[in-house]
Amino acid sequence: MNRRQFTQIAGAAVAAALHGDAQAAPRQQAGAQVTDAQVDKSMADAMRPGPKLQIAMLLYPAMYPLDLVGPFTFLSGLMNAEVHLVWKTLDPIVGAGRFVLTPTKTLAECPRDLDVLFVPGGTPGTEHMMRDREVLDFVADRGSRAKYVTSVCTGSLILGAAGLLKGYRATSHWATRDILPLLGAVPVDQRIVEDRNRITGGGVTSGIDFGLLLAARLSDDTYAKMLQLINEYDPRPPFAAGNVSQAGPVITRHLQTMLLSTHREAASAALEAQKRLHLV
Amino acid sequence: MNRRQFTQIAGAAVAAALHGDAQAAPRQQAGAQVTDAQVDKSMADAMRPGPKLQIAMLLYPAMYPLDLVGPFTFLSGLMNAEVHLVWKTLDPIVGAGRFVLTPTKTLAECPRDLDVLFVPGGTPGTEHMMRDREVLDFVADRGSRAKYVTSVCTGSLILGAAGLLKGYRATSHWATRDILPLLGAVPVDQRIVEDRNRITGGGVTSGIDFGLLLAARLSDDTYAKMLQLINEYDPRPPFAAGNVSQAGPVITRHLQTMLLSTHREAASAALEAQKRLHLV
Repeated sequence: MNRRQFTQIAGAAVAAALHGDAQAAPRQQAGAQVTDAQVDKSMADAMRPGPKLQIAMLLYPAMYPLDLVGPFTFLSGLMNAEVHLVWKTLDPIVGAGRFVLTPTKTLAECPRDLDVLFVPGGTPGTEHMMRDREVLDFVADRGSRAKYVTSVCTGSLILGAAGLLKGYRATSHWATRDILPLLGAVPVDQRIVEDRNRITGGGVTSGIDFGLLLAARLSDDTYAKMLQLINEYDPRPPFAAGNVSQAGPVITRHLQTMLLSTHREAASAALEAQKRLHLV
Repeated sequence: MNRRQFTQIAGAAVAAALHGDAQAAPRQQAGAQVTDAQVDKSMADAMRPGPKLQIAMLLYPAMYPLDLVGPFTFLSGLMNAEVHLVWKTLDPIVGAGRFVLTPTKTLAECPRDLDVLFVPGGTPGTEHMMRDREVLDFVADRGSRAKYVTSVCTGSLILGAAGLLKGYRATSHWATRDILPLLGAVPVDQRIVEDRNRITGGGVTSGIDFGLLLAARLSDDTYAKMLQLINEYDPRPPFAAGNVSQAGPVITRHLQTMLLSTHREAASAALEAQKRLHLV
């Protein structure tokens, strides 16, 4: 490769930035296009000086890493937000697959007034947290004042066990959604459920959709679209088995069998919370 | 709630497991349904005793956590695989968003013969790794024998800088795909590109699609579908801005401007590798 070729390639981004990149957007559709003025406004909002949004994401042993890292990706992409990963101590915890996650703040150090309280899922961690008074007290306290009270996957069962979903429409991992009524919540078969300031997501990967939506609520649609493109969120699942309808009864039944003891434990923990908090 | 109601709800999963759950799969389609025999065979294969698949996923400072955690979710769901998170030392590294990731093995401890070598992306970490001889030597060595040589996002630039993509079709994050030819690779505008034993994914969230596809290659389609349902991968992006066509020229140009210095650094590092390894 000679110098001319190098200059061509290394300069591609410059050219695109200065002149627009017609090549890069051949199938662009007319209408509903984001304008420069919209981008300028979004960026100005994002960079405005002042107190940052306070976001706390709970960590706990045997949680599911992707439940957290999906939303984290979008929330940490907000320039005007501080994201805290909170747990009882600052010691690393071990999640599913023996993946190690490291807290940045203890529950005691977590800001008292939050813009977002987020709880991930993951068994058997969820069932333990549903009975952990220190964690439930923390979730109930921060959740009582947080602007948004949120979860992904079985995290909604922890919100529910802290008394935060009574009378709210909510969702959970498909295999545990039927436990929500025990906690006074109204289960909804939807990937993301918004009811007033509660936003709950379905299982694991729904955290990507959830994170992008929540980022939009905390900034604006233009900024969220920038986050979507930078993270190239243009999903193309190689199989069609992402919900029980598509996966079919055999796979669904097999997984339900594998999850029997989890389901039973979570239901028991939910009943204990129901009795303690008079949820139903 | 009385005892009868509790029994009903806590027993729901049992009933579903024993009798099939007609409620759970109302829209199930005829044909192409997975059978019990297929599930039994997949599970028997997954649990067969013997040496486990050896999977090494590279960690490095300033990498993008979701690039790794997406694929990790599916690969760690293979019952017959050991997943190693490898780096120069066992000290935790700090990724994008100040997210801390903890290695499980040093490069020296990493098994020599791998079933999968995986490299995530993330700037400015990628540019540094493209010039890090210790890392490049490791990647070139393990990649020379690995059954699958793989990446997500800008990770393909590290594979390329190690000389592993010369003459291969590959992809990268959309904003750096044009650097691949400097490394002797043929860039393809596709979310996942498979060429012989090289499998490369596009930006960040493509790691979910990539991870599910790779899990299928390492097990079978039935097992992969079970992984898809347990992770509820039924994406519903709240916006349509996940590729440059959909996001449109204004957002694309804005992000390209933000990524100018990254692009320039990566292109320079690619040229150095090209010269060192005679890639073009």
